[in-house]
Amino acid sequence: MKIAVLPGDGIGPEIVAEAVKVLHALDLRFEMEEAPVGGAAYEAAGHPLPEATLELAKEADAVLFGAVGDWKYDTLERRLRPEQAILGLRKELGLFANFRPAICYAELTHASSLKPELVAGLDILIIRELTGDIYFGQPRGRRESPDGAFRGAQEAFDTMRYSKPEIERIAHVAFQAARKRGKKVTSVDKANVLETFQFWKDVVTEVHAQYPDVELEHMYVDNAAMQLVKAPKKFDVIVTGNMFGDILSDEAAMLTGSIGMLPSASLNADNRGLYEPSHGSAPDIAGQGVANPLATILSAAMMLRFSLNQAEAADRIESAVKSVLAQGLRTADIYSEGTRKVGTRDMGDAVVAALRTQ
Amino acid sequence: MKIAVLPGDGIGPEIVAEAVKVLHALDLRFEMEEAPVGGAAYEAAGHPLPEATLELAKEADAVLFGAVGDWKYDTLERRLRPEQAILGLRKELGLFANFRPAICYAELTHASSLKPELVAGLDILIIRELTGDIYFGQPRGRRESPDGAFRGAQEAFDTMRYSKPEIERIAHVAFQAARKRGKKVTSVDKANVLETFQFWKDVVTEVHAQYPDVELEHMYVDNAAMQLVKAPKKFDVIVTGNMFGDILSDEAAMLTGSIGMLPSASLNADNRGLYEPSHGSAPDIAGQGVANPLATILSAAMMLRFSLNQAEAADRIESAVKSVLAQGLRTADIYSEGTRKVGTRDMGDAVVAALRTQ
Ligand SMILES: CC(C)[C@H](C(=O)O)[C@@H](O)C(=O)O
Ligand SMILES: CC(C)[C@H](C(=O)O)[C@@H](O)C(=O)O
Repeated sequence: MKIAVLPGDGIGPEIVAEAVKVLHALDLRFEMEEAPVGGAAYEAAGHPLPEATLELAKEADAVLFGAVGDWKYDTLERRLRPEQAILGLRKELGLFANFRPAICYAELTHASSLKPELVAGLDILIIRELTGDIYFGQPRGRRESPDGAFRGAQEAFDTMRYSKPEIERIAHVAFQAARKRGKKVTSVDKANVLETFQFWKDVVTEVHAQYPDVELEHMYVDNAAMQLVKAPKKFDVIVTGNMFGDILSDEAAMLTGSIGMLPSASLNADNRGLYEPSHGSAPDIAGQGVANPLATILSAAMMLRFSLNQAEAADRIESAVKSVLAQGLRTADIYSEGTRKVGTRDMGDAVVAALRTQ
Repeated sequence: MKIAVLPGDGIGPEIVAEAVKVLHALDLRFEMEEAPVGGAAYEAAGHPLPEATLELAKEADAVLFGAVGDWKYDTLERRLRPEQAILGLRKELGLFANFRPAICYAELTHASSLKPELVAGLDILIIRELTGDIYFGQPRGRRESPDGAFRGAQEAFDTMRYSKPEIERIAHVAFQAARKRGKKVTSVDKANVLETFQFWKDVVTEVHAQYPDVELEHMYVDNAAMQLVKAPKKFDVIVTGNMFGDILSDEAAMLTGSIGMLPSASLNADNRGLYEPSHGSAPDIAGQGVANPLATILSAAMMLRFSLNQAEAADRIESAVKSVLAQGLRTADIYSEGTRKVGTRDMGDAVVAALRTQ
């Protein structure tokens, strides 16, 4: 089993180091190879996704990814910015299915902005299509406006698009995931305005015919943004396009109050995947040893389950994380009175210790 | 002063009737003319925005709008669906500037999903561009996929686009609005992925040079969706495109917990405008006399202020609404123990009574 380890920028290296430590504490053999990505790769090799890093990611069974990005790269031309690395990896590896759980841990319910009764026990799975939509659609660029009231003025444009097979495959992923959970899928669209999402709705409805045991509901994206705030527990699995998924998965993650706990997986058709925390690179706290490594550690657990066929090891990590929470250990982002504040490394060590006493 | 009154569908007629009642109670002369719109117009005239309705809206100084839409029209072809009426009015009247306040009334803080300390005193103004973006961009439609991995497959597509003058004029609106408030504008984009929104960011930054007294901050849309949940009071004025504005303004409205209280205004370059509640047509409670008319009544106040140059009358309505809340009157959507539940008409009557005793 070969794992490509891409720590990236900001707190990326610190939190990935803890996840690697946890993986080493399992009784499994991995080959792990590290490579630079994002701003770190731009500094080292002049490009956020160097050829060697991409090759490593392609030949590995799974990629463990930290985070990329820093304000200091904001003035670079777009193709050199750190975010291009993650977009490039998604596209090149065909990682079309992004799994983003939004879970509210019992011990952390108080950390949510929402009233406790609205989030206690929350467990939503957002499935975001990750290689299509307006993120990658061509043509795009700047030009003279070809028509309309401002014909001749400078304009910029992008293309939103989805083909039928792209929608079908993500719909199958969503219905299959729902079967193992609450058996309900909410497909989020903007069919009342966009051709792309009327088509999305039609195709999802068609695929649903193969899953009569799963309930399908359609919801407009603006309404979904509201319902997540109003009654998040009404959702089970949400499936949507790349752009709406970007917005709604972050909103849902923040609703839990503990985005520092949330892992994510991005899978391709062969179940190979990239695993990263749902949070970003947090350059403001980088290098201070205070970042929460649990989202990355839980991402490593998802990696074991989805790409490396080691469900038992994944379970072990997840219960070790629950046990450190139960012990009252907290990094600064999830700290509250009466618990014990620890740093990044101590938290990683505590997970390892919990694994050893299982 | 001529007002076009377009009640529309669902609860539209009930709530608009109360706003009209309140307008009549002022010592002002209006000419009001009513016309069908949305599903009601489709039933009456075969089209959601009949020519006569559009003509009336165009010749009026302002449009007072209820709401459109009902599940029963979902199977109509798109151009005949109720929503097309509102999209058509925006486009035909050039209503590019949508003002959507998200305000949390002291008496209603408890109704929010958020913890009271996060929303008490909340007062955000979202300014959404309303006639451009992917809502209206051409080309759009269905076709055989011209390129990419799924070349030849069926696909649907839309075009996102913004020209420089469109961005400039909405940026001016936002900076000018901020000057009268907290002097801070958050421009929401997705410049790290979309050409359109890198351009948006560049143009907003350029316009900002004319407003050195206003602070400008840029935020990605996914982060904005999170920050609204985490710390909504950090925002003053948010300016963004049509689609991101659709999502974020609904999210922000729901955060207040009392979307039944929130008005909106959509203005063109001559300050003529369309005024409607932020909530929808709620067909599930239509005709029961329980809908909250206050968002529509407050929309009429915005109309007086922005389009009819009657700021004093607008103030009077707004303080009458505050006084009925202070009296403890509540429609079902904002009811809580210890207050008095009233229906749509009683609420309208109470506002009129409050006006009379001012
Ligand atoms: C960094 C950015 C390009 C990326 C996205 O928009 O997909 C991020 O927000 C995410 O959700 O992983
Ligand atoms: C009905 C629909 C077309 C409309 C929109 O998306 O603009 C609505 O959601 C709104 O925000 O006014």
